[in-house]
Amino acid sequence: MTELENKGGFTLPGEAGYEKLTLELAKKWGADVIRDSDGTELSPEITEAGYGIYSTICIIRGHNPWAMENLDKLQQTFLVTEPKTAVEHYLELELLKEFFQEQFKINDSAEALGYWQVYDRTTDKEVNKENWSYDKKKGVVRIENCVLWHKYTVSFLAYRIWEEISMYNHITNNWDKEHLIPIDPVYAETQVYLINWMKEWCEEHPATTVVRFTSMFYNFVWIWGSDARKRNLFTDWGSYDFTVSPLALHNFEQKYGYALTAEDFVNQGKYRVTHMPPTKAKKDWMEFINDFVISFGKKLIDIVHEYGKKAYVFYDDSWVGIEPYNDRFYEFGFDGIIKCVFSGYEARLCAGVDTEVHELRLHPYLFPVGLGGAPTFTEGGNPTRDAMQYWRNVRRALLREPIQRIGLGGYLHLTENYPDFCDYIEKVADEFRMLKSFHEKGKPWTLKTKVAVLHCWGKLRSWTLSGHFHETYMHNLIHINEALSGLPVDVDFIDFETARSGDLSRYKVIINAGKAGDAWSGGDNWKDVKVVEAITKWVYEGGCFIGIGEPSATSGYDTFFRLAQVLGVDEDNGARVCHGKWEYEVKAPQNHILDILEWPVMEHIYLTDKKTEVLAEAAGGYPGITRHQFGKGSGIYMTGFAFSEESTRLLLQLILEAGREEQAECITDNLHVECAYYPDAQKLVVINNSGEKQTTKIVCEGAVWSMQLEGYETRLQNICGMGNKRQ
Amino acid sequence: MTELENKGGFTLPGEAGYEKLTLELAKKWGADVIRDSDGTELSPEITEAGYGIYSTICIIRGHNPWAMENLDKLQQTFLVTEPKTAVEHYLELELLKEFFQEQFKINDSAEALGYWQVYDRTTDKEVNKENWSYDKKKGVVRIENCVLWHKYTVSFLAYRIWEEISMYNHITNNWDKEHLIPIDPVYAETQVYLINWMKEWCEEHPATTVVRFTSMFYNFVWIWGSDARKRNLFTDWGSYDFTVSPLALHNFEQKYGYALTAEDFVNQGKYRVTHMPPTKAKKDWMEFINDFVISFGKKLIDIVHEYGKKAYVFYDDSWVGIEPYNDRFYEFGFDGIIKCVFSGYEARLCAGVDTEVHELRLHPYLFPVGLGGAPTFTEGGNPTRDAMQYWRNVRRALLREPIQRIGLGGYLHLTENYPDFCDYIEKVADEFRMLKSFHEKGKPWTLKTKVAVLHCWGKLRSWTLSGHFHETYMHNLIHINEALSGLPVDVDFIDFETARSGDLSRYKVIINAGKAGDAWSGGDNWKDVKVVEAITKWVYEGGCFIGIGEPSATSGYDTFFRLAQVLGVDEDNGARVCHGKWEYEVKAPQNHILDILEWPVMEHIYLTDKKTEVLAEAAGGYPGITRHQFGKGSGIYMTGFAFSEESTRLLLQLILEAGREEQAECITDNLHVECAYYPDAQKLVVINNSGEKQTTKIVCEGAVWSMQLEGYETRLQNICGMGNKRQ
Repeated sequence: MTELENKGGFTLPGEAGYEKLTLELAKKWGADVIRDSDGTELSPEITEAGYGIYSTICIIRGHNPWAMENLDKLQQTFLVTEPKTAVEHYLELELLKEFFQEQFKINDSAEALGYWQVYDRTTDKEVNKENWSYDKKKGVVRIENCVLWHKYTVSFLAYRIWEEISMYNHITNNWDKEHLIPIDPVYAETQVYLINWMKEWCEEHPATTVVRFTSMFYNFVWIWGSDARKRNLFTDWGSYDFTVSPLALHNFEQKYGYALTAEDFVNQGKYRVTHMPPTKAKKDWMEFINDFVISFGKKLIDIVHEYGKKAYVFYDDSWVGIEPYNDRFYEFGFDGIIKCVFSGYEARLCAGVDTEVHELRLHPYLFPVGLGGAPTFTEGGNPTRDAMQYWRNVRRALLREPIQRIGLGGYLHLTENYPDFCDYIEKVADEFRMLKSFHEKGKPWTLKTKVAVLHCWGKLRSWTLSGHFHETYMHNLIHINEALSGLPVDVDFIDFETARSGDLSRYKVIINAGKAGDAWSGGDNWKDVKVVEAITKWVYEGGCFIGIGEPSATSGYDTFFRLAQVLGVDEDNGARVCHGKWEYEVKAPQNHILDILEWPVMEHIYLTDKKTEVLAEAAGGYPGITRHQFGKGSGIYMTGFAFSEESTRLLLQLILEAGREEQAECITDNLHVECAYYPDAQKLVVINNSGEKQTTKIVCEGAVWSMQLEGYETRLQNICGMGNKRQ
Repeated sequence: MTELENKGGFTLPGEAGYEKLTLELAKKWGADVIRDSDGTELSPEITEAGYGIYSTICIIRGHNPWAMENLDKLQQTFLVTEPKTAVEHYLELELLKEFFQEQFKINDSAEALGYWQVYDRTTDKEVNKENWSYDKKKGVVRIENCVLWHKYTVSFLAYRIWEEISMYNHITNNWDKEHLIPIDPVYAETQVYLINWMKEWCEEHPATTVVRFTSMFYNFVWIWGSDARKRNLFTDWGSYDFTVSPLALHNFEQKYGYALTAEDFVNQGKYRVTHMPPTKAKKDWMEFINDFVISFGKKLIDIVHEYGKKAYVFYDDSWVGIEPYNDRFYEFGFDGIIKCVFSGYEARLCAGVDTEVHELRLHPYLFPVGLGGAPTFTEGGNPTRDAMQYWRNVRRALLREPIQRIGLGGYLHLTENYPDFCDYIEKVADEFRMLKSFHEKGKPWTLKTKVAVLHCWGKLRSWTLSGHFHETYMHNLIHINEALSGLPVDVDFIDFETARSGDLSRYKVIINAGKAGDAWSGGDNWKDVKVVEAITKWVYEGGCFIGIGEPSATSGYDTFFRLAQVLGVDEDNGARVCHGKWEYEVKAPQNHILDILEWPVMEHIYLTDKKTEVLAEAAGGYPGITRHQFGKGSGIYMTGFAFSEESTRLLLQLILEAGREEQAECITDNLHVECAYYPDAQKLVVINNSGEKQTTKIVCEGAVWSMQLEGYETRLQNICGMGNKRQ
């Protein structure tokens, strides 16, 4: 590659006071853009060096003077007290007792009080407003005429007086500065203020070429508690609790013709977590908020464009209401999206957004400590090893879909004592640009077998569940998504409306992986006979349904798994404890790697059909993985799925078998090694996902390629007509 | 003791051809009664030796000539086919395909056909009778106008043509004889026949002093399958499936004013297992059958009495409809009840029946092989060791409640080569008679703390769940019952009607142990606010609620455990996966044996209250045992309970604490050793439940008794005024 080709697509975090280092590393890593980070500044020496300049803004914080004068226009949330049992005929509940008092302030305005609710949680019925009163001075609700021994809660509106991301950073880093207050753009006055502010900001930042929004207006929910023993009360990256206000609720009612209540949000104290099936009210509210975020967000983006700058959005923090997967993202007019990534599925999540530029913020960040407080750029840390592992996670996804940019975040000066790390990032940047150049020539070779992942959210929650892998590891589906992120298959995420419609013929594999009642399994959607009919028909005609955990599970029928007839297994919830079960022998097929995999136990799984094959057994003698022929198709059941190189290969094998593509080319014969073939570029890229040396054979364009790779190596192989040799 | 005192209360299985052995062992073991066994005869030399004579009859089998002439009066059952998916617009279901054809014959009489049902199991709706027809010749139901991809079942009536207990013995022992056919006494003709038969039998058995009924008319359900890989389709010791017939169903409708359907029995193919909450229809049917079994059973018992013989009932096999715990058992007029026992709870089950004589059939039976095919009186067997262990299981229950008789079953000649065994049984018989004599003087000392076990069946299923321990070991409650069976506490088994009524003041401890939705946890009974109110109040005023597994669990409320406010813990079914949880430290109290107990894991248990103490942790860092103060009372939660000497002692300690009886006398200080004090007899009996030597101290009547016991030893200590010595 020429010098020129070897440049670009890289965003470097610059740092004032380290101008030399900034420019040196910009050159080494091939950066074309320099950014600021939270807490860093860029000096003129940097901004005037000819690089593009990213500047980070968080639109809803950093306006404390205005906020202090507009305390009725702060962002809000519904909160609900812990239930308290009535042992006398009255009860007093101190509203903020369980909550972090630096985060919340009760909104007891007249319009807010209209949304407050007192519930008898023993009967789950609302208490008549005549039976309770609010003592503003004490912050206490007193309930009269309680039914003895029943438990009661109060749901109320609270202002959020400390923007949560800065609150977290502040407390974690022991900062000593002003608390940043989040203001709510739902109010016309806030909008006027912010539009002016945006204009002024653009005026004041002539060097900035790209404004990076972090992100738009509303943070994911993050409710803190008053007690250090339970500081986190509720966090959900995908939930909309932080978008409410009496005004928004009023506007919603006008628009949708029905009113939401506190209970629609607090839901018996459970709130409405992304991992559970959404109600219609929740989906309507999300749509309503999305509509607002687009309409006002676009105005800000237009201003940025008017100043000749580009607008990118950081897909995290205050991302709520942006929803890049609901087919309306283009309306914002963003020029690009940036996603911080630990995992392959996050790279796919970014790559799949309908926008021009997709940029990955790689890990490790240039911080002294990383995830969970482990050392990175400090004593005991090994940032090169970390970078290799993160790159290993992400690289396989980059083989599948194009990404335009990568970059780092944090404090550049921390790299000074880590020349190894600087060399490794240079290598990563080069590899990235190489993959990007292949994608630009054309799509990589992909299996004909198309895969659908079926859950309540469908396309809206493509690839992600709700947050990072380490936040969602307890769900089988995130492991499946991570495995899929680097496989040579097209994957769609579909909802039950799609399943119901019966338009499934394009797929050869449908995966349903979740716990009974959750959003990933599907909950009550499985009571819909149209869904059951459509998938049963689709399998009978040749499809492969892969069910993991408690797929298609719902109660009220002869089987708990509604697709037991397809899967050939079911789960007994106690009613069949006295039923005999089919005895079986384990028949692990050849070429499978089932013998090296430990499969999680689910105790109450039983075969519903004599013909069901048990491919792997879990400890204790329960079926672990089963296969059941149904018509021309089949049902595969797994008790669980933990992402690993081995389980990923198993999934690939099942997909190959489902699509009768067992003889497909461009598949390695070593499960630690994966590859992608770019026919238009005539390049085969082979990657070693393990830290150890590996050998593999690959059939590509009719020739067999044998090779040995070092740990984590990326190998490029030219596949040009005459050059092909059978080795 | 004198020779005379040392005799009686023992039933010996005699054997023709072994007259000398029979009479020798009768003397050695102090037998006063000799019985026949299945397959043995008693010769005149035995029957005329001055002993009482038991003779075994099974009233509903052994009448094949009459049965063959009355094939429409055989016993029946509802069966349901496996579901089959419609891939065309018709379906054919072969009714007996999945069933053991030697057990069943389709009843396709006009009155039976009226009870047949075809179900669409995808919608769970009955198919109109116009849409199906029965091909009698092929034994096939053809369903027309099927909805494609739906699955269908046929429920139908079948005669049972092989009495199940003899079928099992026949097949297990490779017998080559006629299949015994069960006849149904519901028909007037059968009743006439059986009354004559009973009279003739009494005439022909003048030596018999006790007629042992095995048992009355209806066996517990035991449905066999056609395939050796799933021979057992459904077995439930407590279920009434084998009591149906068109006549009985007709009579029920006349009496109760509503008709039952096949679905009331087959229940989507799940049947109505005892372990799940009963429906009203099931309870009505049980009452209806009980009424019939009493009314006709009493006629047979009256005949026995007319012949000057006694009538005992064996509480197993065809026991269905007898229900010794529904307060009507006395109506039969039985003189005694016999129970075969493996476990302590079975001894209590027998002892608690309202009748004069309670007899235990001890294990091991004098068979070559025992439970599960392990050798007993054959090479590799150790019947003495087995006898010691079974006696250890049962003995602790015999300390608590009086039993009048014990005995053995099987083939006496098998003992010839086991003189050790014969000596040990002599010892057991003497110990038994000693305990019996103490009980006759007065009740043993018992804690003031009274315990209630709460479940759907209440008193009706006191002590047992449904069958033996090895058949129900997967339920926590049987472990609890076994632990309780030897503790010095009064125990009642109560149902939700009792809980609802609020009359709980007599109890200091209520135990609820089960899985969500099962009969032992309580299922939908927990939706009844009256139940929740009553127990909440009772705990607040001082009671101790011990919840095990998924106590008080039901869906639809803010907490899954309806008594979470009492227990201080709850189970998360997925909605709280993003909620923070209270951190905790484990605080095992002193004098507890929690440090040596491994506690089973339930992953989704979380503390609902900061004040909840975690007494033991399960592997993986989840709460295992917790305690929560609530008002003057407390809630104890355990993720599970496996019977052992250690867990039994833990349960005792919790009961002592609940009743503030920590300083109670007559409690050993060694968990392997238990004792009972009989104040009227002035005797303290101390037993070593372990096979190893143990020392213990016991405070009794103000004195401290120290002693060392051999493995399994029973030690008698006189506690008479002046003799007390502090050692």
